[in-house]
Amino acid sequence: MSKSSLSSQLQSYVEPFRVDGSKEFHLKLFKRDANGDLVKSEGKEIIEANRARLSDLQERLYAQDRWSLLLIFQGMDAAGKDSAIESVFEGVNPQGCDVHSFKQPSSEELDHDFMWRAACRLPERGRIGIFNRSYYEECLVVRVHPHVLSAERLPPKLVTKNIWRERFEDIRAFERYLSRNGTVVLKFFLNVSKDEQRRRFLDRLDDQAKNWKFSLGDIVERKAWDRYQAAYQDVIRHTSSADAPWYVVPADRKWFARVVIGSVIVQALDRLDLQFPKVDKATLEEFKKVRVALENEGKATSKGAPKKTVATSASAK
Amino acid sequence: MSKSSLSSQLQSYVEPFRVDGSKEFHLKLFKRDANGDLVKSEGKEIIEANRARLSDLQERLYAQDRWSLLLIFQGMDAAGKDSAIESVFEGVNPQGCDVHSFKQPSSEELDHDFMWRAACRLPERGRIGIFNRSYYEECLVVRVHPHVLSAERLPPKLVTKNIWRERFEDIRAFERYLSRNGTVVLKFFLNVSKDEQRRRFLDRLDDQAKNWKFSLGDIVERKAWDRYQAAYQDVIRHTSSADAPWYVVPADRKWFARVVIGSVIVQALDRLDLQFPKVDKATLEEFKKVRVALENEGKATSKGAPKKTVATSASAK
Repeated sequence: MSKSSLSSQLQSYVEPFRVDGSKEFHLKLFKRDANGDLVKSEGKEIIEANRARLSDLQERLYAQDRWSLLLIFQGMDAAGKDSAIESVFEGVNPQGCDVHSFKQPSSEELDHDFMWRAACRLPERGRIGIFNRSYYEECLVVRVHPHVLSAERLPPKLVTKNIWRERFEDIRAFERYLSRNGTVVLKFFLNVSKDEQRRRFLDRLDDQAKNWKFSLGDIVERKAWDRYQAAYQDVIRHTSSADAPWYVVPADRKWFARVVIGSVIVQALDRLDLQFPKVDKATLEEFKKVRVALENEGKATSKGAPKKTVATSASAK
Repeated sequence: MSKSSLSSQLQSYVEPFRVDGSKEFHLKLFKRDANGDLVKSEGKEIIEANRARLSDLQERLYAQDRWSLLLIFQGMDAAGKDSAIESVFEGVNPQGCDVHSFKQPSSEELDHDFMWRAACRLPERGRIGIFNRSYYEECLVVRVHPHVLSAERLPPKLVTKNIWRERFEDIRAFERYLSRNGTVVLKFFLNVSKDEQRRRFLDRLDDQAKNWKFSLGDIVERKAWDRYQAAYQDVIRHTSSADAPWYVVPADRKWFARVVIGSVIVQALDRLDLQFPKVDKATLEEFKKVRVALENEGKATSKGAPKKTVATSASAK
């Protein structure tokens, strides 16, 4: 399939959910139960096809070793972050991907600027870095629960009413900097409804194999639902850019969330026009000689020739 | 000495060399052999007094654990960076200071954005971080020697004529972000003359104990003197700000460079109004009880009383 047709084929699962700062953003206008006019079985086919494409693109990304990809996943509890990451990257070479789950910061982490721990874990060139939660929590959980901010040991005179505006500005500048240095930044907000969260929590409570995923703290956060939604609205409005767009992913149907996430990643990598590094003519000539030497080595060994001959031939290249 | 008088006393060794972006910058207007109307013995007294002040201020910075201090040292070879760091911090508790010398980047470092390796080494709250060279090299050595930039494996389409403008903008944004998060950033350019560099190189060649400091590469860099001066001019002009000022330190007299550097650091810390954390009344009452228990423990032991009594008394607090 040609590149342009692949990109355009995926476009309908990408474009409606993309927020790049080019127009005003209202979270309420984004559907949580959208299905892209697909039935589940069609969705599964796209998910499968995207995995194969992603696996190929990741290999090129790694071989070319110029660009890196940073994927940020945010969402309420039970929005499906973990399972989406697991599903979308099924079959992709783990050597080229690093997943970091950001939980409560350590004392050492709190003793640094709020993006420090994430900055240290950025992907190398040629790699895909996946952040399960991220520095965005600093404008979400920290904003919803002001006592968390107090615990951050910032000098009091720096904690002013401008702090969120400043953090948005700093994040925008950071992501612009990353994109200028070869990191493609894609951000996913898994947009789940309060009702669907209730169903998934009940499921976690009922199914013993899912019990471990539930914590009483989740209910505390659920009570702050509206404040979280307002915080997400503000975050997405102020940190969306062409360099680092947000995707507001309908997350009530897990399969459709995976269609969207996979399509966004495949389209973005596809547009980088990743190529395996070309080997120049002179090196190709060398390769031919090495090939002959290796073949002869096989013959020599089978004939019981002394190893010395082979070694000399190899070191002569 | 009251704070205001200390700050104003040091002002004449600070203000003439400060560049904060408030007016146009011309490196040529800065003297390299200035002595602040001091003779060497007077300079030495100030250096000594600043060390004592710095030692006290560092202890408060550490105890208060809110602010951190980032000191960046740049300059041509033999400008005196290493010896200035050694001299200014003589007697300061090394537990509260970390020095990082940035040399040629590793493959892992090159596989990240250009500020990554420095960002990971930023000082914790309460600490002083000293960068001997820094991410500024990315706009100095990398600019003077274009082949170094080519080796950085940036995607070719990102390497445009805007790259230096973008790097300046990214550095400014980064330092503004640091200052908003409690890191005071001070940058020193050790402004040595070409003549003085020649003298110091000759010294390194003649004195066996200094031989190790000389490398043939230093002569290559010396040949690019004018291009380096132009690069410094541009760096300082575009990255000076009130948040993160540059100090263009006259460096032909090592003792005067140390007067200036020490004075800048002492004045900046002095203005933070660092205090030892206050212990509240209730805790002070507890302290009194613990004090009595510890005293009694001494008496009990000397009387040969069983240890158990002491343990019970201590755990009752």
